[in-house]
Amino acid sequence: MTSSNPTPQWQAYLEVHRDRFIEELKDFLRIPSISALPDHADDVAAAARWVARRLERAGLENVQVMATGGHPVVYADWCHAQDRPTVLIYGHFDVQPVDPIDLWTHPPFEPVIHEDRIFSRGASDDKGNLMAPITALEALLSTDRRLPLNVKFFAEGQEEIGSPQLPAFVRENKALLDCDLVVSADGLQWAPDQPKIDMAYKGMTALEITVQGPAADLHSGLYGGMVQNPNHALARILASFHDDSGRVAVEGFYDAVVPLTAEAREQMARPPFDEGALKQRLQVDDLFGEPGYTAVERGWARPTLEICGMGGGFQGEGFKGIVPARASAKISCRLTADQDPDAIVRLIRRHVETLPLPGVKVSVTPVEGGVGPYAMPLDHPGVHAAARVLAELYGKPPYFTRCGGTIPICTLFLKTLGVYTVGFSFSLEDENLHGPDEYFRLESLWRSQAGYVRLLDELADML
Amino acid sequence: MTSSNPTPQWQAYLEVHRDRFIEELKDFLRIPSISALPDHADDVAAAARWVARRLERAGLENVQVMATGGHPVVYADWCHAQDRPTVLIYGHFDVQPVDPIDLWTHPPFEPVIHEDRIFSRGASDDKGNLMAPITALEALLSTDRRLPLNVKFFAEGQEEIGSPQLPAFVRENKALLDCDLVVSADGLQWAPDQPKIDMAYKGMTALEITVQGPAADLHSGLYGGMVQNPNHALARILASFHDDSGRVAVEGFYDAVVPLTAEAREQMARPPFDEGALKQRLQVDDLFGEPGYTAVERGWARPTLEICGMGGGFQGEGFKGIVPARASAKISCRLTADQDPDAIVRLIRRHVETLPLPGVKVSVTPVEGGVGPYAMPLDHPGVHAAARVLAELYGKPPYFTRCGGTIPICTLFLKTLGVYTVGFSFSLEDENLHGPDEYFRLESLWRSQAGYVRLLDELADML
Repeated sequence: MTSSNPTPQWQAYLEVHRDRFIEELKDFLRIPSISALPDHADDVAAAARWVARRLERAGLENVQVMATGGHPVVYADWCHAQDRPTVLIYGHFDVQPVDPIDLWTHPPFEPVIHEDRIFSRGASDDKGNLMAPITALEALLSTDRRLPLNVKFFAEGQEEIGSPQLPAFVRENKALLDCDLVVSADGLQWAPDQPKIDMAYKGMTALEITVQGPAADLHSGLYGGMVQNPNHALARILASFHDDSGRVAVEGFYDAVVPLTAEAREQMARPPFDEGALKQRLQVDDLFGEPGYTAVERGWARPTLEICGMGGGFQGEGFKGIVPARASAKISCRLTADQDPDAIVRLIRRHVETLPLPGVKVSVTPVEGGVGPYAMPLDHPGVHAAARVLAELYGKPPYFTRCGGTIPICTLFLKTLGVYTVGFSFSLEDENLHGPDEYFRLESLWRSQAGYVRLLDELADML
Repeated sequence: MTSSNPTPQWQAYLEVHRDRFIEELKDFLRIPSISALPDHADDVAAAARWVARRLERAGLENVQVMATGGHPVVYADWCHAQDRPTVLIYGHFDVQPVDPIDLWTHPPFEPVIHEDRIFSRGASDDKGNLMAPITALEALLSTDRRLPLNVKFFAEGQEEIGSPQLPAFVRENKALLDCDLVVSADGLQWAPDQPKIDMAYKGMTALEITVQGPAADLHSGLYGGMVQNPNHALARILASFHDDSGRVAVEGFYDAVVPLTAEAREQMARPPFDEGALKQRLQVDDLFGEPGYTAVERGWARPTLEICGMGGGFQGEGFKGIVPARASAKISCRLTADQDPDAIVRLIRRHVETLPLPGVKVSVTPVEGGVGPYAMPLDHPGVHAAARVLAELYGKPPYFTRCGGTIPICTLFLKTLGVYTVGFSFSLEDENLHGPDEYFRLESLWRSQAGYVRLLDELADML
């Protein structure tokens, strides 16, 4: 990419074929591969076949659509770079539903280009991103006839529904997917002119607490004061989860948390964060949370316990004087390294069991599907490689960010394959991912094609 | 009633006319005077006219159906007993809806008699009871041509919907309703062979607490830990209303409560109370509440603060990882003498306002229609009179009970007319009041006719 060198062949190839790439992306986008709707299962399968054909055309080998018990996955590879590392490129070809359909300017599966943006469901999440590594591989294999390292390509069709069959599939296909690093083509950049690399995602575990009192709702006049009110008991339980300052008060909750290093805190302090703008946008007077940490640190890198839902008794219009029979709450914990989802459930259960609550029965039921936290080592060579390429592409170094959300695939690859995942994806937050009028900037596609070529080069030497 | 005297004329009259009284009660019961259903407004009015005609026939004077802005009331009087006290007899001619209609053995407005019980909606609540004083007055006026004291008769048609227009009506007709004592023909006896007199009802005030956090539900991963969660704030508020022991922890809550005297506690300890049976019926392992009082005392005579409903965030099937925008709760306080409903709302509001809850807006909104507590003096002559008559009728003295429920009419008469209300009604708890197959024991009707004659006699001397 340095201007003093002549244009590399792969670059010329990518430029020459842009119109074709756009037509191909449109073809891909026309497949309504909505994984959440059973009626669209055939479309998800059609998208898998489309990806497989496209990988074959790009020159990859061992291309196969594989069954998972749910929506299929696609695998392909090119593994002829002896003594070189192996990278697994990950992405997904399923898309979100399109409701509310009447808010779309154009039909969601009839892609149109307007001011260098391609509008369609899935354009940004994740079909546009998926095209970048495919076409980058094609450019290299068509011009150099080789890749600088071994590449496995792995795309799934159930990301938008939480990848229910993926953990079992990855476990059962460890040898096939074995690699030194995963590069994810699913995710966001910070801004059109500012790259980022996510260094960590929080894990998650969820549970439900139920408080059973009398067998039926009771008249609050006739029985109030005689029996424990399940709403009172639940409020005591829920209030006990935090101290006044906002710190989680469940004994042992923070025990496994790896403290943030000065370097990690410095990294997190670098991206601009406007507290006033956030308060205004959320319409709150104050931000609030665990003392001793900035709002960004709390949101990105400190574990939380949130009551996502609670309810008991009469909640309709008007008033009903009852002592309700039961009350319940849904709790979610977002976890940071090295908290274990199951251990956290056990701590919460023990905490609840030690509260003195006569006259009611309390049960704590974990919600299945806990996910461990994910964090990259700050000095991982894959991070350095990606950072160097992003700096070239944008003319400035990336922010090293974290995210309070949970990306189960990263934890899955780390736990099952023993490898980290570097995000290398070029969507932007304003591209209406999951909403009406989703679009992808064509500029991001061209930028990311070059990015993938460069990243493979960097990884070939660094890993 | 003493067996050595010859049968009094009124008694003979009541016995001779029993068949007619039954036919009249059936006529009355055929009117579907459901106050809750707008379609039945004409039926409620027809029931008012029926009562008015019946009072006229009984010999009362100044009979009138009076408008209230809602369902009408009926007034009548006989005020020729100079230098004698005036009693106002209260009851209601409206009835509850009949749903679920398919659980009725006979159509609810086609009264039938089976094993000396008359089955029909309103038989026990309150038309059967209302017939007793009307026919007792008729018997006295037809035989003695006079009453032993002045009687005003006041029946309403909106009791089953909370008597919304009654407070204004009573205030505007104070002179008309002026009296020395109210006798209520609406209520229950303890058992077929055991009378009772209710000495107190709790008052009530209700309010709603709303906690507003961010403008919209937020992703619990992206924003959890950065902002105050309205569910957390609400749980802290609700948990703060009681201490661990179950005592209300709102400062000043008990300040106005008149302590229970030894005599009052002794009265309450007399009726049999089977704690084990209650626990079994409610399916709870323990009863629970304010320490220092028995379960009966707590239920009957100690104020309570109950969370009747609370809710915030996602409560459906499954799970949704959110920090909700808002949460709210519905609180009801049952009050004992001399707590003031408005003052209690102010105390709760102050309590909530002193809690440190940054990042959310908390509002406390009283529900209209607070009712003050009601308590008879233990030595009230009206209580003594009723107790003496009940002892005669049942062959054993009544229990002096209390009730955690709220009977606004008693508080209304006390506040507006300055007089107490003695319950003198003969329904029994097993008579399916408000349920399918409501019935009234004819034996209760005959017993209560004699009871009213005797009560008027006693009150003529005692008041």
